[in-house]
Amino acid sequence: MAPSTPRLVIPVDLKKKPWQQNPPLHNRWHPDIPAVAEVKTGELFRVEMVDWTGGTISDDHSALDVKTLDLSIVHYLSGPIRVVDTDGNPARPGDLLAVEICNLGPLPGDEWGFTAIFDRENGGGFLTDHFPCATKAIWYFEGIYAYSPHIPGVRFPGLTHPGIVGTAPSMELLNIWNERERELEETGLQTLKLCEVLHSRPLANLPSTKGCVLGKIKEGSLEWEKVAREAARTIPGRENGGNCDIKNLSRGSKVYLPVFVDGANLSTGDMHFSQGDGEVAFCGAIEMSGFLELKCEIIRDGMKKYLTPMGPTRLHVNPIFEIGPVEPRFSEWLVFEGISVDESGRQHYLDASVAYKRAVLNAIDYLSRFGYSKEQVYLLLSCCPCEGRISGIVDSPNAVATLAIPIAIFDQDIRPKIGSVPTGPRLVRNNPVLPQCTYDGNLPITKNPSASI
Amino acid sequence: MAPSTPRLVIPVDLKKKPWQQNPPLHNRWHPDIPAVAEVKTGELFRVEMVDWTGGTISDDHSALDVKTLDLSIVHYLSGPIRVVDTDGNPARPGDLLAVEICNLGPLPGDEWGFTAIFDRENGGGFLTDHFPCATKAIWYFEGIYAYSPHIPGVRFPGLTHPGIVGTAPSMELLNIWNERERELEETGLQTLKLCEVLHSRPLANLPSTKGCVLGKIKEGSLEWEKVAREAARTIPGRENGGNCDIKNLSRGSKVYLPVFVDGANLSTGDMHFSQGDGEVAFCGAIEMSGFLELKCEIIRDGMKKYLTPMGPTRLHVNPIFEIGPVEPRFSEWLVFEGISVDESGRQHYLDASVAYKRAVLNAIDYLSRFGYSKEQVYLLLSCCPCEGRISGIVDSPNAVATLAIPIAIFDQDIRPKIGSVPTGPRLVRNNPVLPQCTYDGNLPITKNPSASI
Amino acid sequence: MAPSTPRLVIPVDLKKKPWQQNPPLHNRWHPDIPAVAEVKTGELFRVEMVDWTGGTISDDHSALDVKTLDLSIVHYLSGPIRVVDTDGNPARPGDLLAVEICNLGPLPGDEWGFTAIFDRENGGGFLTDHFPCATKAIWYFEGIYAYSPHIPGVRFPGLTHPGIVGTAPSMELLNIWNERERELEETGLQTLKLCEVLHSRPLANLPSTKGCVLGKIKEGSLEWEKVAREAARTIPGRENGGNCDIKNLSRGSKVYLPVFVDGANLSTGDMHFSQGDGEVAFCGAIEMSGFLELKCEIIRDGMKKYLTPMGPTRLHVNPIFEIGPVEPRFSEWLVFEGISVDESGRQHYLDASVAYKRAVLNAIDYLSRFGYSKEQVYLLLSCCPCEGRISGIVDSPNAVATLAIPIAIFDQDIRPKIGSVPTGPRLVRNNPVLPQCTYDGNLPITKNPSASI
Amino acid sequence: MAPSTPRLVIPVDLKKKPWQQNPPLHNRWHPDIPAVAEVKTGELFRVEMVDWTGGTISDDHSALDVKTLDLSIVHYLSGPIRVVDTDGNPARPGDLLAVEICNLGPLPGDEWGFTAIFDRENGGGFLTDHFPCATKAIWYFEGIYAYSPHIPGVRFPGLTHPGIVGTAPSMELLNIWNERERELEETGLQTLKLCEVLHSRPLANLPSTKGCVLGKIKEGSLEWEKVAREAARTIPGRENGGNCDIKNLSRGSKVYLPVFVDGANLSTGDMHFSQGDGEVAFCGAIEMSGFLELKCEIIRDGMKKYLTPMGPTRLHVNPIFEIGPVEPRFSEWLVFEGISVDESGRQHYLDASVAYKRAVLNAIDYLSRFGYSKEQVYLLLSCCPCEGRISGIVDSPNAVATLAIPIAIFDQDIRPKIGSVPTGPRLVRNNPVLPQCTYDGNLPITKNPSASI
Repeated sequence: MAPSTPRLVIPVDLKKKPWQQNPPLHNRWHPDIPAVAEVKTGELFRVEMVDWTGGTISDDHSALDVKTLDLSIVHYLSGPIRVVDTDGNPARPGDLLAVEICNLGPLPGDEWGFTAIFDRENGGGFLTDHFPCATKAIWYFEGIYAYSPHIPGVRFPGLTHPGIVGTAPSMELLNIWNERERELEETGLQTLKLCEVLHSRPLANLPSTKGCVLGKIKEGSLEWEKVAREAARTIPGRENGGNCDIKNLSRGSKVYLPVFVDGANLSTGDMHFSQGDGEVAFCGAIEMSGFLELKCEIIRDGMKKYLTPMGPTRLHVNPIFEIGPVEPRFSEWLVFEGISVDESGRQHYLDASVAYKRAVLNAIDYLSRFGYSKEQVYLLLSCCPCEGRISGIVDSPNAVATLAIPIAIFDQDIRPKIGSVPTGPRLVRNNPVLPQCTYDGNLPITKNPSASI
Repeated sequence: MAPSTPRLVIPVDLKKKPWQQNPPLHNRWHPDIPAVAEVKTGELFRVEMVDWTGGTISDDHSALDVKTLDLSIVHYLSGPIRVVDTDGNPARPGDLLAVEICNLGPLPGDEWGFTAIFDRENGGGFLTDHFPCATKAIWYFEGIYAYSPHIPGVRFPGLTHPGIVGTAPSMELLNIWNERERELEETGLQTLKLCEVLHSRPLANLPSTKGCVLGKIKEGSLEWEKVAREAARTIPGRENGGNCDIKNLSRGSKVYLPVFVDGANLSTGDMHFSQGDGEVAFCGAIEMSGFLELKCEIIRDGMKKYLTPMGPTRLHVNPIFEIGPVEPRFSEWLVFEGISVDESGRQHYLDASVAYKRAVLNAIDYLSRFGYSKEQVYLLLSCCPCEGRISGIVDSPNAVATLAIPIAIFDQDIRPKIGSVPTGPRLVRNNPVLPQCTYDGNLPITKNPSASI
Repeated sequence: MAPSTPRLVIPVDLKKKPWQQNPPLHNRWHPDIPAVAEVKTGELFRVEMVDWTGGTISDDHSALDVKTLDLSIVHYLSGPIRVVDTDGNPARPGDLLAVEICNLGPLPGDEWGFTAIFDRENGGGFLTDHFPCATKAIWYFEGIYAYSPHIPGVRFPGLTHPGIVGTAPSMELLNIWNERERELEETGLQTLKLCEVLHSRPLANLPSTKGCVLGKIKEGSLEWEKVAREAARTIPGRENGGNCDIKNLSRGSKVYLPVFVDGANLSTGDMHFSQGDGEVAFCGAIEMSGFLELKCEIIRDGMKKYLTPMGPTRLHVNPIFEIGPVEPRFSEWLVFEGISVDESGRQHYLDASVAYKRAVLNAIDYLSRFGYSKEQVYLLLSCCPCEGRISGIVDSPNAVATLAIPIAIFDQDIRPKIGSVPTGPRLVRNNPVLPQCTYDGNLPITKNPSASI
Repeated sequence: MAPSTPRLVIPVDLKKKPWQQNPPLHNRWHPDIPAVAEVKTGELFRVEMVDWTGGTISDDHSALDVKTLDLSIVHYLSGPIRVVDTDGNPARPGDLLAVEICNLGPLPGDEWGFTAIFDRENGGGFLTDHFPCATKAIWYFEGIYAYSPHIPGVRFPGLTHPGIVGTAPSMELLNIWNERERELEETGLQTLKLCEVLHSRPLANLPSTKGCVLGKIKEGSLEWEKVAREAARTIPGRENGGNCDIKNLSRGSKVYLPVFVDGANLSTGDMHFSQGDGEVAFCGAIEMSGFLELKCEIIRDGMKKYLTPMGPTRLHVNPIFEIGPVEPRFSEWLVFEGISVDESGRQHYLDASVAYKRAVLNAIDYLSRFGYSKEQVYLLLSCCPCEGRISGIVDSPNAVATLAIPIAIFDQDIRPKIGSVPTGPRLVRNNPVLPQCTYDGNLPITKNPSASI
């Protein structure tokens, strides 16, 4: 065997359920979840992962599985992996763990993925007030390319990446998380702004024992009960990296993660074949099972040298990373602007989230003139390699955000043209083919939601 | 003369004051400001512009001019330019005006610019709570490159662009602007969130006759009084384009602007030699005088075909654009993450502005370890070709924003390294060389503001 | 199974010898070699391939295997593959076969490769008069990256591609090949120019039964004898594609091959993890076993529509291709020029081969000042993603060729610098680590060949 | 004046003839041509240049000026410029002169250029045997873009560069040039290969007093006679740089030139708005007048440190350069292959010039199916930003060269397509609009030369 054949440290078996995998998976962050594997610095190793839902979503034409997904179970992660140096000394709190993503991809034999809009009362998404119904699109992979029977006329190379790469938090950091998120949950409704439009989405997902999977900690044990009650949900990205959903963490990139516990306890999951900046539909990348080939280095005291601010906030850090050299190259982009005036015409103050929402809505409206339904475009913008930029954040009162879409992913020219009539010939691409579940919440929303944009 | 020598339709004379220029400039948006030039579709024409302050900031080592700048006068724009087709018929409301930026640059003999942080009580900036003092850096241009005596060790090619390209609003649209911004000004303090940190910045800049320059409308006339009281300030970007500060509107790009009045009445200004996404320091690009060489096409009924939503919000549109083919290419980037937890540790809900603020603060903290003061880095990140991305906007409660910095602009390797000690040898780059005025507001802020980051 | 899981149509077993594979391999071009597999248009399929030598070169520190390699056996190809449309009708002569390379890579468990200089009397290379000794370097892969224990200080992402993709020639085309190459062999010595420097390399490799492997044709049969005597060697690229060694035929690219026989009879082989333009060391890419995932379309009559000139030369065509979107991106290049004056100072007339040779020699000489032996640089330039350009081909008498080397592949800054002394500290990188066999030909060459450059 | 306003050291007046300019121009290389300007290292300076013919070619629809151009007068260069360090010490033989191209462009008011095919008996070109007639195309510039009334349907951003940047040769180097080129001229006919197809082109252009312009050396003086008889023609690129026609020497690039005489004596000229690799039509770039903004550094002893080989060939060097960061970006390319089998079917041995010729002919043949005449395509490929690569140079007997054409420069999709008929609808683009002079040489060539391709 060549020295660079990656050692498989965590296999998964797609024929088994997520809770049957060996080594076991986990779906929470907690310092006490034991490592299931150990790697040395400089060693190339391979980690396999189930998709974030653990196989709950099927390759079919119904969105019922999306509508009824139990969100308490996500995300199933592979790990933790203990990292030691060549002398056997583990990474220590205060170190930086440099993780190079040497390779990645779907699991052989499982070359497909899904993008979904969650039901307004089950997770929702960035535009849940416009698109409250559970909807999904299936994608098939042809090597670097993805195409969907549900969104015809587009095909693009994936900027494949793990949605989640993170180290285990220390108990101290975990407490900070739980405290600040609980505070938001409790006091949020009075102070929130964007939330007025997104009001059925949970403000935060606090620890809950329901659906909890904790790796080697035996379910039902006292330890399990304690850890499950404390362990942080994996949904948001935080100081440990986690669910950052950064589409550029692709082949050849390198992420520098802070280390909070001995051994670093690295976990990964939520593989995305492709994702647009923002992953706007929430289940919005092309979600898949997959593998990572990684190599770690330890930068001793790296947090202090490079990241940690002085004083009481020394844990208040964020990972940094370097972009890899093989991202898909596009040279022609059509770019949509949005400003922080919401759909009702109300002015917000330098709110980049509102501005980005408007940019996405503008793009949806525009592209729906080329033969697509608005749901199709929403799904597409969530998972294609589009770029979301904060273009202006100081010109009161309008933040300006832009959404840049690579023109080459379409089989038609989507640029504005003198004399052309964009709509018409391709209307066959519309709704009927898209699996969608009627939203049956009791909120007073329009029956045909996309007409209201 | 070759057919493609651009026709100079608006000259400026840098030896004159902004209000002495002929044709006259303007610094407000209003449908009644008369056009000062006319161009035909397909014609290549040249527009010259003073810098946004009209020459108020000097090429020297004092920040006093920044501290005392009268913001009521900005931005001085060249135009309006009436656009007609080859038959002489003007662009009409409902059309799209396609403006190609064929070329641009600084004015010959004036190859320098400035980047500034405004005083907390005079405009402020994205990080005004951390950097309340007026500060500036001067940049000199060597062709495509800029360097600064105030920020040694960096040199980069400019992604030169106009901060402002816009069409005149109709009276109806102007009324919408004034109404929604007034409402924000009046009701904002109760509902704002980010504003708690930015609280000395104005929420909106409502129309005011002070400092008003209205082109051919004679100052002191009845018409002047009426227009000055109604005309919108140029600070925010809006439906007509305007101060979008989009750094990618560079050579070879094409912007599609909605037309609201007969002739479109195109105005341009606020030339930037270079700017980072977000232009975080507010006066944050490399501000300069300059020229544009433009070519217009009219897409008849283009707003309806491509932009306008149905119903009462038909004016609720935003420009779109295509990126040009000669942007500077960088292949190596160091990327900083930020999440929507603010500096005090407080959790915000999916707030991309907070997340971006954190990413910028993280980058400032990191780069200040390489021999720079935090003010230097703040200015640098505001004007160098860095990219600000909305990476995750759905994973409650954390929005994730990223700031990507091209590694090649530095004369040292700024990547984290095993064993290296980033600080030390280059400390000479620090504060003393940076012009800065002590902040003398009466807010309870730290004396050495950057230490508190 | 997802519809896009590639169907494995040709497996190889690396534990077997090349002549033991099932389906059988072949190492010649001939219309009568029977197809071993059939694929439909639109179908994603997978082809596995041994390395071009069929496992003759070992992962060790001796160049003896290179010195004694029997070149009559190369290149071992997988195929032929018959291509039919969805109605079962085969590709026909005159069609174009569009082959999309959806994915590719090394075979799992065999993640290594080699680059070699052949002995002057056994194949040689572009610079055989300077580097007559058999030499090799081993490369190990870490996902997209390659590094070599024999050439320390460099690591780069591979622009992985098949050296050979080709269709079977018709008998008519095969006869043209054999005739023109025989004519060269017979008359070449009088007329050649470059050959004066390369004089121990064979002018052409004419058909020979020695080492011949012909797939399903049973060795020893009458048919085998006939085909073996006629079949073209695979060494040069020709009208059918073949050994074009085009480094940009990588992931996501699409090649349009002319069809000369029913079913097209596509064969592939000679996988390269990475290669520089020109593959100057002859065995000069990072040679490996590997797999391709392909998808074919048939453009009926495409040769006539797109390629075929009129008249007697209708077979006189060449493939065309489109470059894929995920090539490694480099933004900084150091570029070396060469002109068509050879090393002895002799002026040649617009000879791009001489100019390119000079550019390569200039680069070798330059880089050898940074701690490398010239053999190391020669191997490196042959296999790293450098670009060879024909910059000027008309300014009599000097052709100008350039060789552009991406700066980022080195762990030191290789640019010229004021005051720096490039040589010295890294001399440890030199010769001793490079496996090399003394050249023992009887030509009057220098003992230490690189000293004579 | 800002410190970075470039100092104009060599102006030209386009209303004057080339021999009337002040400072005077020169069109030969010789160490005794006196410097006309002096610059300091680190200083930004501006050089203006006439086009290479000094205004002989007109912006009109006749090719008569091309047919009758006196080639003894080319290229008119601006300079020499003496370079000294900040202490006033000149660059010295053995130094390297680093010249950064900070900016460049056409001269204001002269925004047009021309591309021409020379008559077979007056210079010819790479494909003179196929295109013997004088032909030209005029191009107009719109900022970064060029378009031509003679080649409709294409428009592209220019990769603008000087065709000639060079230092003065020493007397010793000049003698080497004259000797080796004379030897080629005298002995060439017996040994040449490519020349059989290009046989009416001069093998070399030896020194001649006819048309000679020598800057400050007074015409008619004894010195003039001596220098004119010795001075090298500017047509080929050589050790001093010179007419390298490297299309990537554009904005932001840096060239390292060897210094052979005190002060370096830098000269520049032959500005190209755009050029394809190879500049195949000979007068094949978009030729124009223009300006350069340059900055020089001296690397003392740089030739010895970086370039000079040991021993008798110490002058046998070539410049190196770094590519700038603002080249036009294209992501989609259609690529044509050529092998070293010529149009008659004859096999050549690893001849990259023949292979590139075939690739160019293949591209011409292909693109002429899209409504263009072959002359139009030949001119286009000579001046658009296409890339010419040496892809394979070792697979005996076929060199493989490739020509990559950016798809985005065309207003139609030029890719091969199932079912499409490329020819037909656009035939109006053909010959009639292209200025062309009938070839009236007495060589036995076809009347309609392009039909024979």
